[in-house]
Amino acid sequence: MKDLRIAVIGYGFMGRTHSNAYKRLTDFFPVQHRPVLQVACARNEGKVKAFADNWGYERIETDWRKAVTAPDVDLVDICTPNDSHQEIAIAAAKAGKMIVCEKPLARTVEESLPMVEAVEKAGVANMVWFNYRRVLAIALAKQLIDEGRIGKPYHYRATFLQDWTISADVPQGGAALWRLDVNAAGSGVTGDLLAHNIDTAMWLNGPITRVVARTETFVKERMHQLTGKVEPVGIDDACLFIAEFQNGSLGLFESTRYARGHKALKTLELNGAEGSLAFDLEEMEYLDYFDYNSESHVRGWRRIHVTNGEHPYMNRYWVPGLVIGYEHTFLNAIADFVMGLESGKPAQPDFRNALQTQRVCDAILKSAREERWVETGVEL
Amino acid sequence: MKDLRIAVIGYGFMGRTHSNAYKRLTDFFPVQHRPVLQVACARNEGKVKAFADNWGYERIETDWRKAVTAPDVDLVDICTPNDSHQEIAIAAAKAGKMIVCEKPLARTVEESLPMVEAVEKAGVANMVWFNYRRVLAIALAKQLIDEGRIGKPYHYRATFLQDWTISADVPQGGAALWRLDVNAAGSGVTGDLLAHNIDTAMWLNGPITRVVARTETFVKERMHQLTGKVEPVGIDDACLFIAEFQNGSLGLFESTRYARGHKALKTLELNGAEGSLAFDLEEMEYLDYFDYNSESHVRGWRRIHVTNGEHPYMNRYWVPGLVIGYEHTFLNAIADFVMGLESGKPAQPDFRNALQTQRVCDAILKSAREERWVETGVEL
Amino acid sequence: MKDLRIAVIGYGFMGRTHSNAYKRLTDFFPVQHRPVLQVACARNEGKVKAFADNWGYERIETDWRKAVTAPDVDLVDICTPNDSHQEIAIAAAKAGKMIVCEKPLARTVEESLPMVEAVEKAGVANMVWFNYRRVLAIALAKQLIDEGRIGKPYHYRATFLQDWTISADVPQGGAALWRLDVNAAGSGVTGDLLAHNIDTAMWLNGPITRVVARTETFVKERMHQLTGKVEPVGIDDACLFIAEFQNGSLGLFESTRYARGHKALKTLELNGAEGSLAFDLEEMEYLDYFDYNSESHVRGWRRIHVTNGEHPYMNRYWVPGLVIGYEHTFLNAIADFVMGLESGKPAQPDFRNALQTQRVCDAILKSAREERWVETGVEL
Amino acid sequence: MKDLRIAVIGYGFMGRTHSNAYKRLTDFFPVQHRPVLQVACARNEGKVKAFADNWGYERIETDWRKAVTAPDVDLVDICTPNDSHQEIAIAAAKAGKMIVCEKPLARTVEESLPMVEAVEKAGVANMVWFNYRRVLAIALAKQLIDEGRIGKPYHYRATFLQDWTISADVPQGGAALWRLDVNAAGSGVTGDLLAHNIDTAMWLNGPITRVVARTETFVKERMHQLTGKVEPVGIDDACLFIAEFQNGSLGLFESTRYARGHKALKTLELNGAEGSLAFDLEEMEYLDYFDYNSESHVRGWRRIHVTNGEHPYMNRYWVPGLVIGYEHTFLNAIADFVMGLESGKPAQPDFRNALQTQRVCDAILKSAREERWVETGVEL
Repeated sequence: MKDLRIAVIGYGFMGRTHSNAYKRLTDFFPVQHRPVLQVACARNEGKVKAFADNWGYERIETDWRKAVTAPDVDLVDICTPNDSHQEIAIAAAKAGKMIVCEKPLARTVEESLPMVEAVEKAGVANMVWFNYRRVLAIALAKQLIDEGRIGKPYHYRATFLQDWTISADVPQGGAALWRLDVNAAGSGVTGDLLAHNIDTAMWLNGPITRVVARTETFVKERMHQLTGKVEPVGIDDACLFIAEFQNGSLGLFESTRYARGHKALKTLELNGAEGSLAFDLEEMEYLDYFDYNSESHVRGWRRIHVTNGEHPYMNRYWVPGLVIGYEHTFLNAIADFVMGLESGKPAQPDFRNALQTQRVCDAILKSAREERWVETGVEL
Repeated sequence: MKDLRIAVIGYGFMGRTHSNAYKRLTDFFPVQHRPVLQVACARNEGKVKAFADNWGYERIETDWRKAVTAPDVDLVDICTPNDSHQEIAIAAAKAGKMIVCEKPLARTVEESLPMVEAVEKAGVANMVWFNYRRVLAIALAKQLIDEGRIGKPYHYRATFLQDWTISADVPQGGAALWRLDVNAAGSGVTGDLLAHNIDTAMWLNGPITRVVARTETFVKERMHQLTGKVEPVGIDDACLFIAEFQNGSLGLFESTRYARGHKALKTLELNGAEGSLAFDLEEMEYLDYFDYNSESHVRGWRRIHVTNGEHPYMNRYWVPGLVIGYEHTFLNAIADFVMGLESGKPAQPDFRNALQTQRVCDAILKSAREERWVETGVEL
Repeated sequence: MKDLRIAVIGYGFMGRTHSNAYKRLTDFFPVQHRPVLQVACARNEGKVKAFADNWGYERIETDWRKAVTAPDVDLVDICTPNDSHQEIAIAAAKAGKMIVCEKPLARTVEESLPMVEAVEKAGVANMVWFNYRRVLAIALAKQLIDEGRIGKPYHYRATFLQDWTISADVPQGGAALWRLDVNAAGSGVTGDLLAHNIDTAMWLNGPITRVVARTETFVKERMHQLTGKVEPVGIDDACLFIAEFQNGSLGLFESTRYARGHKALKTLELNGAEGSLAFDLEEMEYLDYFDYNSESHVRGWRRIHVTNGEHPYMNRYWVPGLVIGYEHTFLNAIADFVMGLESGKPAQPDFRNALQTQRVCDAILKSAREERWVETGVEL
Repeated sequence: MKDLRIAVIGYGFMGRTHSNAYKRLTDFFPVQHRPVLQVACARNEGKVKAFADNWGYERIETDWRKAVTAPDVDLVDICTPNDSHQEIAIAAAKAGKMIVCEKPLARTVEESLPMVEAVEKAGVANMVWFNYRRVLAIALAKQLIDEGRIGKPYHYRATFLQDWTISADVPQGGAALWRLDVNAAGSGVTGDLLAHNIDTAMWLNGPITRVVARTETFVKERMHQLTGKVEPVGIDDACLFIAEFQNGSLGLFESTRYARGHKALKTLELNGAEGSLAFDLEEMEYLDYFDYNSESHVRGWRRIHVTNGEHPYMNRYWVPGLVIGYEHTFLNAIADFVMGLESGKPAQPDFRNALQTQRVCDAILKSAREERWVETGVEL
């Protein structure tokens, strides 16, 4: 058993989910690396101390430059707002550290390209936390597609619907609300939510080549917590786009934080000539599957309760029928990353793969600004 | 095309559903008998006149004895409260009329036996309107069982849950509320609702041989509309029973009119070694089917939307995906009855078959009274 | 009671649903007009004779010009393919007949405009059969919106998904397959399916002002039943579009006949500041409603089983909990039309109102051709 | 922060779920006791060593008598088969250890009584792991009942359906299959599954006073892994019972391991005059609630996605909409236990409370044997 000493930069929501994943890895997965919570790093000393105490980190840092170059660190985990991903990642790569970066890779393709170059030049292991690939049902969807059960694809549709910013009284910027601040986040739902859907979509259905999009900012001004003033809102509250996939199928995507009644309705559906698949994150234990090759009088959408030992990842957990949750997607992800280190087959998406999603995001925002179809430039 | 002249006795809820079925028969089914709405009969002349006008009956009668012996009548349809079924049926049989009788056959086995004898002695076509056998999904369930898809049965469960009598202000007796009057109805949910579940259960899963039951009357007294006085309630508001089937499987049944939130939740589920089936009347377009013989990683309950042309009865209606409703169960039933006349293979359940359900109902009530297991005496 | 003598032009699927509605009207609705099935008209004498016999029409015609001018006809019902709507409607209007026309109004706005002028000039009652407004759940949705329960709207989304043309062996043209022939139909899913969604959307959420669309024809050539040759397919197999509503909300629409597993999945969802609504035609007895004004710990999407007496239209049918079906949307529609005649408040959508939907359809097809955003020109 | 040194006796399924709960307690709950995994104990040295290594136990024992009396142990956790609960619990109590015992308390009331006496005499903190009380949705159900939202209760029904023992090739006895060995388990589904349902039912709906039950053993003989011979099966494969609650409502319960298609379908439903509640473990993120006090046209079963911060326990986990899983029920349970230590209000069910469930289980088995109604003797 080898130690894998981790420095987590940032102690927000993702700092928590990742810490939880590291701590549980060897309880559930037969890996040869034991994660060590070595450094928790953030600017606010009091808060990062509390975070470190809660999760059991060995020590803290308040300067990320020290954390990413520290000799007692093997892997840097970037959990900060998107505007600092680039700088941290490049420094960590130069220091020869492995890097796992929370999604999206950065705010733009332009910001992302040097990151990809940096990790590839340094030859360090790297991954972006598109954790939804590790939902059991989505992993099973991938398996069923690879088994040829869906046939020629015609339609792919995906949503990510939330409702937490409808009130105009929600401020922007700072702490938990940096996602509403365009400078910190780069974009709104496009980078925060649709990036997940796009990563999943291209994993399951191949490259997206062209898009036409419409974004909207329903609340035009919000109090900014960093300036203390009411400021224009620069992010997209909602984004809808039509996509062309390289394989000839059509995609329809929607994300918003103004869909009353939906807390985290991340859905996907794929329709092919031989079958269809559908998923909904709010009941993530199910994958719905329609098999056209059943006898016609018993055809129907079947709800697969993805909790059997033969389902992806489930042999690591409990007995059939007992559900695991959202947090396990991170545990499965870090398990894949570590197993990738051990097997020599790096876990995906790495930085280069995540750049594909970034290209689509950029194209979406450009299409919305210019009100026209835009090529994504995704590598085919 | 031959006329089938009908006398309907009673103009209540069932008088309406049956009239509707007769009027639509030849629009949808290629039969050789055309129902003619000849006589509407009930004691209240004004009300039966209005009923007859609404539905287009040729004439009315206020004395059922005249209706069932009228020379211009071929078929007598008994839609009156249960306490008059016996007398009318026996008279109609003696007059040589075909008889279709609303369920249950009568209030008790004792009352039912002479009815069976009468129709058999007279040699007249007869049927009891256990219309739920004609729900598309239930007919498909029967087909799947007959195809051997379920295998050795272990469990059968069924409910019929309503909530319309919770208020103690609902009176009993008279008009639409005779179902709450034990003299008119014979029993409460047992004869009204469980009779349906029992008929379906024995059709799908064979004879019920023994039961233990518990009944309850939650509201002990209600205003009686016939006497104008508060009177004890004699019916069962709820009935729960455990059943043994001849085939070795166990049954669990429940019916109540005190299940808040359920208007007509008639459910059934059958579990066998090879598969399972489930149904719910409130979404009657679906049959749920679990096929154990699927590959294990894609096993799941599939929702069959029972609206394809190859599904039972559906080739008579619209195009795939478009649902029909509750009323069509009566249309399908009368179609089966008429096709039975024409083919010489009588539609089921006839009086003798419906007597089986009556035996189970009697055993249930006896078990509840005597607080012990009771043999049903169903013919095996 | 006054006779309302009807000539139905066309005996296809819609000829059946309309005939059924006429025959049942007075059984269920207390109107003062009794529909009389006077004339069934179509070119194929043998087939129209069989149709007339089945449904009980008084007589047949094989020339629609005779039917629409016949003195024994009060109302002309246009159930023919879309390419003949204009000519028949204008002739019927000139003859002073009331007109009910199957949707869409015509193939294009250009074709539709003279129809609107004709009926308005003639002063004849007119309606287009956008029957889905008469689904109980959708009518209830309209009521809840009008009650102010949804608040400021942000998002509207709708789909109409089918899967019946995936096989390249399905021919186009003639009889039941004219919907695949661009000359007869004008367009594919846009006019056939999306027109329904657009009519419903603008009824519930107001005018659509601008669209960007993508259409696709997955199967490029099909055997044409009229020419006997393999011909290019001119219709859209699928259509996706993003919409702007006048009220500031965003719409997302999709229709296809290549969504494996969906027979007639017509869905809609509306998200507003105070609540949300959702509907799915395959389980049309439900309306889903999210009420943000519930206490927060008991907020949830509630499934309203739209079968109570106080729900739209349901006081005309059965008892609570018992579902009606697709065909009743036509019955409700003709009831509204006739009650409109009697009350002087014409039922909607009339031809002018249906023209709005036509404008959106034209804009969609233009947007898809020209690959850009297009103004709909809908009257505000 | 104070150490809470734990000795876990048994390394099976429950040994894993409990270990996981201990390790995560302080990551999520602000308690003042830190669980220390001190001793893992089981007879098989190799296996318990592997288990201890996996989860990070300080040391192992192979003799439970040493473990429960060890001076470095504060709390004994009994995860062994049911036949050893009594002996271990009494020894641990005598040694003055706190005790948490996996359910059921023991095989019979007779075995359980001395356990209750022992912990009460010793004055040690004690709890039985009826973990389902800590499902978020079930805890919310309890809250809604306590808020008076359900009103006078009429019906309670519960199932626990599995399908893993249908094959006659599954052996009994030893390791993971001791649950099929009547000597080790005491009973079949009654003690294993129904005990959970009964505990939940009495927590939510009060004492069960009388029962009539039917049990069945579908597979009469199985290979016994301890003897190597085919032996009679002594457990109940299925158990159905009707119950009377003290509050006048009726209960209906069913459990089986022969319900094809159900892996762990633990359901409950409660119907009261003012509202109803329903739950299903296979989609444990939801509680279904029907509120009769809504306006009638918007009444419906609402699906509460129990993942908001104000829902029970959820303020300790992630953000709204993100589900936790089965394993968190154990984490919540140990958190309640520890908070009970700290607050002086012991978490429930303690041994005495769990004895109530044992009384019902005994009455069920007696009723099934004697084929008659049996009083439970539950303390009122």
